[in-house]
Amino acid sequence: MNPSLARCLVAEFVGTAGLLALIVGSGIMADNLSGGNDGVALIGCTAAIGAGLTVLIWVFGPVSGCHINPAVTLAFTLRGEIAPQRAAAYVAVQAFAGVVGVLATHVMFDLPILQASTTVRTGVGQWFSEIVATFGLVTVILGCLRVRPRAVAAAVGLFIFAACWFTASTSFANPAVTLARSFTDTFCGIRPVDAPAFILMEFLAAAAAVPFAAWLFRKDTT
Amino acid sequence: MNPSLARCLVAEFVGTAGLLALIVGSGIMADNLSGGNDGVALIGCTAAIGAGLTVLIWVFGPVSGCHINPAVTLAFTLRGEIAPQRAAAYVAVQAFAGVVGVLATHVMFDLPILQASTTVRTGVGQWFSEIVATFGLVTVILGCLRVRPRAVAAAVGLFIFAACWFTASTSFANPAVTLARSFTDTFCGIRPVDAPAFILMEFLAAAAAVPFAAWLFRKDTT
Amino acid sequence: MNPSLARCLVAEFVGTAGLLALIVGSGIMADNLSGGNDGVALIGCTAAIGAGLTVLIWVFGPVSGCHINPAVTLAFTLRGEIAPQRAAAYVAVQAFAGVVGVLATHVMFDLPILQASTTVRTGVGQWFSEIVATFGLVTVILGCLRVRPRAVAAAVGLFIFAACWFTASTSFANPAVTLARSFTDTFCGIRPVDAPAFILMEFLAAAAAVPFAAWLFRKDTT
Amino acid sequence: MNPSLARCLVAEFVGTAGLLALIVGSGIMADNLSGGNDGVALIGCTAAIGAGLTVLIWVFGPVSGCHINPAVTLAFTLRGEIAPQRAAAYVAVQAFAGVVGVLATHVMFDLPILQASTTVRTGVGQWFSEIVATFGLVTVILGCLRVRPRAVAAAVGLFIFAACWFTASTSFANPAVTLARSFTDTFCGIRPVDAPAFILMEFLAAAAAVPFAAWLFRKDTT
Repeated sequence: MNPSLARCLVAEFVGTAGLLALIVGSGIMADNLSGGNDGVALIGCTAAIGAGLTVLIWVFGPVSGCHINPAVTLAFTLRGEIAPQRAAAYVAVQAFAGVVGVLATHVMFDLPILQASTTVRTGVGQWFSEIVATFGLVTVILGCLRVRPRAVAAAVGLFIFAACWFTASTSFANPAVTLARSFTDTFCGIRPVDAPAFILMEFLAAAAAVPFAAWLFRKDTT
Repeated sequence: MNPSLARCLVAEFVGTAGLLALIVGSGIMADNLSGGNDGVALIGCTAAIGAGLTVLIWVFGPVSGCHINPAVTLAFTLRGEIAPQRAAAYVAVQAFAGVVGVLATHVMFDLPILQASTTVRTGVGQWFSEIVATFGLVTVILGCLRVRPRAVAAAVGLFIFAACWFTASTSFANPAVTLARSFTDTFCGIRPVDAPAFILMEFLAAAAAVPFAAWLFRKDTT
Repeated sequence: MNPSLARCLVAEFVGTAGLLALIVGSGIMADNLSGGNDGVALIGCTAAIGAGLTVLIWVFGPVSGCHINPAVTLAFTLRGEIAPQRAAAYVAVQAFAGVVGVLATHVMFDLPILQASTTVRTGVGQWFSEIVATFGLVTVILGCLRVRPRAVAAAVGLFIFAACWFTASTSFANPAVTLARSFTDTFCGIRPVDAPAFILMEFLAAAAAVPFAAWLFRKDTT
Repeated sequence: MNPSLARCLVAEFVGTAGLLALIVGSGIMADNLSGGNDGVALIGCTAAIGAGLTVLIWVFGPVSGCHINPAVTLAFTLRGEIAPQRAAAYVAVQAFAGVVGVLATHVMFDLPILQASTTVRTGVGQWFSEIVATFGLVTVILGCLRVRPRAVAAAVGLFIFAACWFTASTSFANPAVTLARSFTDTFCGIRPVDAPAFILMEFLAAAAAVPFAAWLFRKDTT
């Protein structure tokens, strides 16, 4: 399969919109049903996110690579595996699709379509969490692609599920997701003013993971 | 294996009845035990449904394809992969088997065998949710069959698990399931009067997903 | 690998004792921690059981087949895949090992070692549930072995997890488990007087599943 | 791939630190959110641990073997599959990395960086639990490596998830983890004074599992 750019961009669009529907929709459902026990809510929505993310990568991975994450597209650009112009198109589509996914989810749940989050997410612990989560995500992707490419979809789903629990920020780890989540004042929102610092940490961590993974997973030539 | 139609129809019957036992039984169990916390109940029954659905497809898939869903049978009919007459037999068996599965589940839980649901499920958000869920389901099936057929059973189980959380309707996505769930006044029921609109959305979404998937996942010939 | 009978019996012993530790131990832990919400308790212990059961089959399957269930051993005996004498040795070891597993679990949790359950589990709904669960289990095993043998461990783990939710009896589906669970007055116990009817249903359902699976999954010769 | 020792030690370092972040971080998150229902907390953090552990082994396994556990390194040393000097380096890195992982997690959650646990974990039931958990873990690893090496990462993740539920100690099963968890006074801590007995049980059980697995899983030569 050598899909055209159009199909790749459609795959990135549907994949990213689907990812945001997954995150925002399951957050709303979990919050509505869990009677104020946020532990119950987090179990429900993180399990749904991990499961759905794996499916998205299985289905759209063979078309576009299923980056659905500008930090991942940055990592592949730094590795020279995607041309900068193509990468820019990917990122633009991801950013737009994420917002569309959030608005569509508001339609499903009969909520006001346009919203802005009021959830405060800031501080050193949160930023360090995003670094850990995104560095981990890119390391997992590059490591799996190098040594067991067939496990990458499951590895990403399981990693993000786990990272939602072990990082203090619940692991956004995706600039398109961060931007889009500023458009919803529900369970998983983030104040627009807090989004840029998250996005910066995510891009920095992705950039840092590239040389680390290149060294750790390189083929020995001796 | 080139199974006869009789065996295919038996596989569709046992698979669809099993699917409804899975949905209705786990809903009753979850509702009984969760002390009014519907988040806890939804975690239990959706995990059981996703797990059991994957097993059904593993076991019955090689016999009949394990459609166990008239919207899926419609999609394969539109693709010309199953003859219309055979498809009609599949759908009739699915519709009948779903109801049998619900009644058998009532026997397991010592409940009145014949019931009619009183749970209201209607409105634009619910209908849009069914479109999203069924369009997604058929896209996942056709995408996986095209690019990684061995993952299709796991992909369907994980997708339905996730869709139970991220759609406002908890993702029926199956006309036989919708019909059968109107026969139970338990956790997962739907009022008979609300079922036709759900079923219409499901068939429309399945029909729409067929050309989309054919374009997105086509093999390039250039 | 052509292991001797001694190693097979040790594998059946450790596997069955481990299965009971899994069931009884996770039941005690879940019951202790869930603050009276039995839905939370069931999520915890059934997920642990499904996960652990898959691991047991991966590890001990290549040694002894990892029946760890007299109903499964009966099914393979009826199919002529294990000699009756060898099958009798399997069943004796399974019955003994299950009780040992329960007593060892009591040691882990600082409970009285010898107990008798007082939990009532009887009635038509419960017996029908055991028939459904065991018929389903044997069908899943025989179907997977026939058409995708590599998935059998995961399929059994996922099926039992699901069956704990969709059957009213929470799916014992195993005579050695039923016997052993009469020796513990904790979350998962069953009154000794109720055990024989469960065991009878399990053996009958296993016997009935053998010809059904032989017909449904047979290779076509035409 | 024939990675140098440096890369192996970095893989063990990142893997073990990541494992402790996974355990301690998800424990803090779960405890914070679950409103005092420890069953909910344990579901969340054990699922995250099992998922993340599988990913760690997928990613770092091909580099260093991903022992990330001195008891596992001991087992491979006894089997003669790793030289004692190399094993000593592994264990030193694991012990140090675990503590670093705990301190980094405290940074993520804005907690005091240096802590000492006050959680009592002692007594015969706890010690016996650690023997069961570690004996089981090493048997699972050696059995899977012998008969289905591709499943070992999933098997370890699923086994540890299950063992968190069916053993009374919630299954530390790892001397580096035990040491590191004495440095956190959060959900998953263990009093420093209780750690040595746990560590002793873990090493003894790992040593005992090696000849057992060698016998049970040996290739027959007749």
